Amino acid sequence: MSVLELALCAKSAAPILAQADSNLKNKALFAIADAIERNVDNILRENAKDIQNAKASGISASLIDRLSLSEKRLRSIADSVREVAGLNDPIGEVLGGCVRPNGLAIRKIRVPIGVCGIIYEARPNVTVDAAVLCLKSGNVCLLRGGKEAICSNSILVSVMQEALRSVGLPAAAVSFINDVSRESSNEMMKLNGILDVLIPRGGAGLINAVVNNSTVPVIQTGVGNCHIYVDSSADIGMAVDIAVNAKCSRPSVCNAAETFLVHSSIASAFLFALKPRLDEYSVETHGCDITKKILGDCVIPATEEDYEKEYLDYKVAIKVVDSLDEAIDHINKFGTRHSECIVTSDVFSAETFTKKIDAAAVYVNASTRFTDGGEFGLGAEIGISTQKLHARGPMGLSELTTYKYIVSGNGQIR
Amino acid sequence: MSVLELALCAKSAAPILAQADSNLKNKALFAIADAIERNVDNILRENAKDIQNAKASGISASLIDRLSLSEKRLRSIADSVREVAGLNDPIGEVLGGCVRPNGLAIRKIRVPIGVCGIIYEARPNVTVDAAVLCLKSGNVCLLRGGKEAICSNSILVSVMQEALRSVGLPAAAVSFINDVSRESSNEMMKLNGILDVLIPRGGAGLINAVVNNSTVPVIQTGVGNCHIYVDSSADIGMAVDIAVNAKCSRPSVCNAAETFLVHSSIASAFLFALKPRLDEYSVETHGCDITKKILGDCVIPATEEDYEKEYLDYKVAIKVVDSLDEAIDHINKFGTRHSECIVTSDVFSAETFTKKIDAAAVYVNASTRFTDGGEFGLGAEIGISTQKLHARGPMGLSELTTYKYIVSGNGQIR
Repeated sequence: MSVLELALCAKSAAPILAQADSNLKNKALFAIADAIERNVDNILRENAKDIQNAKASGISASLIDRLSLSEKRLRSIADSVREVAGLNDPIGEVLGGCVRPNGLAIRKIRVPIGVCGIIYEARPNVTVDAAVLCLKSGNVCLLRGGKEAICSNSILVSVMQEALRSVGLPAAAVSFINDVSRESSNEMMKLNGILDVLIPRGGAGLINAVVNNSTVPVIQTGVGNCHIYVDSSADIGMAVDIAVNAKCSRPSVCNAAETFLVHSSIASAFLFALKPRLDEYSVETHGCDITKKILGDCVIPATEEDYEKEYLDYKVAIKVVDSLDEAIDHINKFGTRHSECIVTSDVFSAETFTKKIDAAAVYVNASTRFTDGGEFGLGAEIGISTQKLHARGPMGLSELTTYKYIVSGNGQIR
Repeated sequence: MSVLELALCAKSAAPILAQADSNLKNKALFAIADAIERNVDNILRENAKDIQNAKASGISASLIDRLSLSEKRLRSIADSVREVAGLNDPIGEVLGGCVRPNGLAIRKIRVPIGVCGIIYEARPNVTVDAAVLCLKSGNVCLLRGGKEAICSNSILVSVMQEALRSVGLPAAAVSFINDVSRESSNEMMKLNGILDVLIPRGGAGLINAVVNNSTVPVIQTGVGNCHIYVDSSADIGMAVDIAVNAKCSRPSVCNAAETFLVHSSIASAFLFALKPRLDEYSVETHGCDITKKILGDCVIPATEEDYEKEYLDYKVAIKVVDSLDEAIDHINKFGTRHSECIVTSDVFSAETFTKKIDAAAVYVNASTRFTDGGEFGLGAEIGISTQKLHARGPMGLSELTTYKYIVSGNGQIR
């Protein structure tokens, strides 16, 4: 089927999913989890083909790791599907309402968005993740994964579709585009009137391409140029722990820190305490002139480019600032509105920072690594929005919904 | 100043507006209202130039009416500015929060969107309307009005900017592009990273141009192909009253009805009662074969095009259907997800309709004309969203906001 045919098919399934009650959706989720476990061998056989192709085309070891499934990973995927079944169904929630002076009764009701297009890169677990979050929230998804995972994604979709059919739901509720050409992505971006939203999940290149080309409304996710600002009043030990955790616990993810800013009055003490801890992870340090003066020749001079970059690696930029305001200006200039942190003991600094920083999540004395649907208590996450419309920060099931007004009268006219 | 310079200037004012407290914002709103009243003569002089130019270029009488200001209209605009001052300030509202098991305290706080671009057509009152709603909600606006109203818009903006300055707020909080070329609109649509949202207000042509060309996130407003479905169990008198009100009370607005659907079992009775009432307004009737059979030769045969069209005029399409489901399918196919109504006495029909119809506002036994910020109790309205992301239906002050998470800890790392 063509992209358009697949999309129309998905759209025709949307009213059925929107009306499906929680019991039926949960039954489908359990059936999907069981089917994944039952098909471990088949899935791993297809995954092996992807890995073989990836190796043949000389893809990096870290990408191959992200591509690789194992029995253990599949069982953990199945478990997470069951966890989604256990979450509250957001659909039907009454968000508000009133009776107007003329007697009209207005209710604002949470409903599914409809058809969610998702364009993503190598990790095949996203296929299951995105599909089940859409399913639980009454949405139909139209998935378009990367070419590296095409065999793994195809079988995962077949397995899920079989499970949907087994409980009487349309297979098209989880629709999948197996054309991995650039054209298929571009076509998706123009499906206005069929797709209600398009969510790109992947690197900055993919996200920018979707933002620049899509006429379908987009939710921009993921790019995180996050900062830790160490205020003059900071507890040095706490600041070092937070900075090291934010940078080194998992540098490849979007909530990892990329730049440390430190107040000049505390810079030497902080940097001397920090350096040996960064050295444990062999972190490459790019710093401003003062940082270089304090830490010496091991520091590579930092350029504007360093402050702009999301390293996603064991690299960090460090800048000494003379005031809280300078830190705030730097962050609002170079940040990507994802997650930003101040380490401070001063209540006024904390308040100024949280008020003036323009980001989805603003932290006081805690690592930026907590920006995550699970950590925020949303139960699951389809991505982390870095835009301001619709949803900001971690997007759980509620963020995959919209609302409608139901207005009941007895003949009111205007 | 170029569009880019104006936009950068607007952006630099955004943090100041975001931090302004309610008292200051209200002071600015009252100053704007007073300034409009004080400048009535100057504003009317500039408005007269626009009207003269419009007449010279042969613009329609209805457009000239929409363009025209009068002392009475200006006083009513000033009053509505004072009404906005009286509304609750949405900024700072705590939307939710929790303490996580690790002790992290999370609060979700309502904040302004930032810089709102608004592209609109002839009516100069939109200039004031949009500016004050943005101001009250802590946003900066970048306005780009139509060329027909350029003199009126320019002076209204000057008057508002003077008022802003008088209370110590930056004039750039209400920024205005006086270049009315197509290029200036196109440039606005590409201001990613400067504009946070773009809201087109006007006809379908403008809205489609913005949706198709903007890389800045758009909120789609206004196009309303609304239906009244008269169920087999409908009270005929109520159905006729609602249909006539929805079609004829103000046909040029987006919440006016464009098509009536009627169940075959009640079609003759309804149409015979309806026809004389439509005739009072000289409504041109386009109907299906059965409608034509019932009402005779006065009915023009309806085509698919009639069902697709937003007439915005004293014209209506009528179709006889054989079931509630046929009506729902018709509406979900041809509707624009704006406002849809069922007239019925049957509770199950009402429930099915409200569940299955995909629209911002679904009515049971009331006119679609109520889809309006004021009628919904939102106090004011920047537009009616017909998309599903961010906001749906009437958009008041809250819909001009986003949120951020503030996360407070005492050294938590992950």
